[in-house]
Amino acid sequence: MNYSLQAGGKRIRPLLLLSTIHALGEEIEKGIQAACSLEMIHTYSLIHDDLPAMDNDDLRRGKPTNHKVFGEAIAILAGDGLLTYSFQCLAKDPLLTLEQKVALLELLAQSAGPEGMVGGQVADMEGENKSLTLEELQYIHENKTGKLLSYSVLAGAIIGGATEEQQALFHQFSQHLGLAFQIQDDILDIEGDQEKIGKPVGSDQSNHKSTYPSLLTLEGAKEKLKVHIEAAQYFLKQTKLDITFLNEITQLIAQRDH
Amino acid sequence: MNYSLQAGGKRIRPLLLLSTIHALGEEIEKGIQAACSLEMIHTYSLIHDDLPAMDNDDLRRGKPTNHKVFGEAIAILAGDGLLTYSFQCLAKDPLLTLEQKVALLELLAQSAGPEGMVGGQVADMEGENKSLTLEELQYIHENKTGKLLSYSVLAGAIIGGATEEQQALFHQFSQHLGLAFQIQDDILDIEGDQEKIGKPVGSDQSNHKSTYPSLLTLEGAKEKLKVHIEAAQYFLKQTKLDITFLNEITQLIAQRDH
Repeated sequence: MNYSLQAGGKRIRPLLLLSTIHALGEEIEKGIQAACSLEMIHTYSLIHDDLPAMDNDDLRRGKPTNHKVFGEAIAILAGDGLLTYSFQCLAKDPLLTLEQKVALLELLAQSAGPEGMVGGQVADMEGENKSLTLEELQYIHENKTGKLLSYSVLAGAIIGGATEEQQALFHQFSQHLGLAFQIQDDILDIEGDQEKIGKPVGSDQSNHKSTYPSLLTLEGAKEKLKVHIEAAQYFLKQTKLDITFLNEITQLIAQRDH
Repeated sequence: MNYSLQAGGKRIRPLLLLSTIHALGEEIEKGIQAACSLEMIHTYSLIHDDLPAMDNDDLRRGKPTNHKVFGEAIAILAGDGLLTYSFQCLAKDPLLTLEQKVALLELLAQSAGPEGMVGGQVADMEGENKSLTLEELQYIHENKTGKLLSYSVLAGAIIGGATEEQQALFHQFSQHLGLAFQIQDDILDIEGDQEKIGKPVGSDQSNHKSTYPSLLTLEGAKEKLKVHIEAAQYFLKQTKLDITFLNEITQLIAQRDH
């Protein structure tokens, strides 16, 4: 569990959660445990995705994948442990109210489980070696990565005490950000530098995966990325809050090279 | 997810939860969603335990194991999905108070995660092909199966509104019941009927696993089973509640043939 948690990574999800709390003028310390819980769920999904029965990846964040170091059985259990402990961290968080805990626990399970990440992963596997439509591709990404990314922002909004109107704007922001994130991921698999990304590039093409560039051309994907980044920035601005950090993360996602 | 949930099984854990609510004079309907959530966690653990990288079992509850039917990738995801959905069911249960939800969610994660079932499973795998002491064996069982069985009773106690004194007695009861359950499991692996159990017998011996009979002899294990059943019944009686159903389940565990 610790090996994969400490292996680095961008920590985009915890950053989004804490920056949303900050935008709402609340102390970010209130979100530390929820941010850790979120990174645990994300890390569990990477450990299980990398397994031989799934994507069979040897490298993650520039280091050998969990099962390469500890074997498959322990990697499966490390993932199970992180997933379960993530809920435990939220449930025993001493700084949140009961209302906040239950709201976060339900939203996290919904975003990470069969109605979210796990459902998207199943759709992704079923779509392998098939030509997908843009709608099918979007469905996969909304579930596989989008909903947990949205949760990052919405969790911060709940902890920061956002009004319903603010929550709706943050939700719109996070959905466009999630799509932008995924499009840039697909672009990096073509244009990226293996050293910086920490895993091999070009795997989508060799696995015959449908991606935004394969459906829209590379130029078309870059255009779509720009549209989603601008929409994300638009909804962020509508909140009329101090969005400095959230804007920086949005820029980072648009321009990231890993 | 549905294939393994519907594959049958004894439903001991949901029965314990609902019978504890009944003992406390509360409507068992209040525990239906928690009981389903509990069976989901138990089922996820069976799906992952059966995987080739773990126990590599082909049969479970008399039917082909999940990965035999759907392949390893989907079996891993079905387990992940059930685990996550289990928490979702608790969090959105419309009949529980916020206090009850948070108490159940924390206790469930603690019982099923690294401090409980997952931790016990890791210790079990590390103990394979080694001679264990009785203390080490007991540690494995307390975590691998005992804590989730305890949770079954304690969850019922929380939903049924048990006093602290009653909760303490139910806890003692559940710990002895859990050990009795595991000892009978080990005995059945020697004396059981493969048809009734729904999986091959004799696998502990061929896997060189330390068990209660291997450490205490078969007679010694049966003696220990009797001691734990009597202790369980003793603490149950101390609650001075209507324990008819809980007593029946205890008898069933002592005498079960599958």
